[in-house]
Amino acid sequence: MSKLEKSTIEKALTALSGWALADDGLSIKRVYKFGDFNAAFGFMTRVALMADKMDHHPEWFNVYNKVEMTLTTHDAGGVTQKDIDLATFCQTASGQ
Amino acid sequence: MSKLEKSTIEKALTALSGWALADDGLSIKRVYKFGDFNAAFGFMTRVALMADKMDHHPEWFNVYNKVEMTLTTHDAGGVTQKDIDLATFCQTASGQ
Repeated sequence: MSKLEKSTIEKALTALSGWALADDGLSIKRVYKFGDFNAAFGFMTRVALMADKMDHHPEWFNVYNKVEMTLTTHDAGGVTQKDIDLATFCQTASGQ
Repeated sequence: MSKLEKSTIEKALTALSGWALADDGLSIKRVYKFGDFNAAFGFMTRVALMADKMDHHPEWFNVYNKVEMTLTTHDAGGVTQKDIDLATFCQTASGQ
């Protein structure tokens, strides 16, 4: 899986609500907010199941109703289609 | 629930493997490492269920097999018995 060009990432992000390329261009990021911890961790659980199936895992921080996510592909040294696919799943799973 | 004295926290920590008081004295912290993401998220799921039952939630960062945890009680402005109780559950759930 090879690293995507910046223009390709930016085009993909137009379809992904709230996701943005990090300043260093090496990852995509988004903060999700939910109604409470139950909703936030429910989202995380759905993403975890998909991530483990894809063998592609997020970096994420959670406190109460907030989930801060960073997606990158370490092996490729940047953003790949796997990150776009996982972010697309996050959008579906969060309904946001 | 009131904030515990530093000496009380330190005494409690002697029974909690790997947990330490943060430099600012306002939280307790530990990094857990597991065999893989499945094991790490399995641990997080057990802790999430208990945390929501206690209505006392961790701040945590996960990447692959690593879970960095911070426990504090915002309402009390420091570490309370709830944090010690949740850390004790983490020890049981992790087997570490």
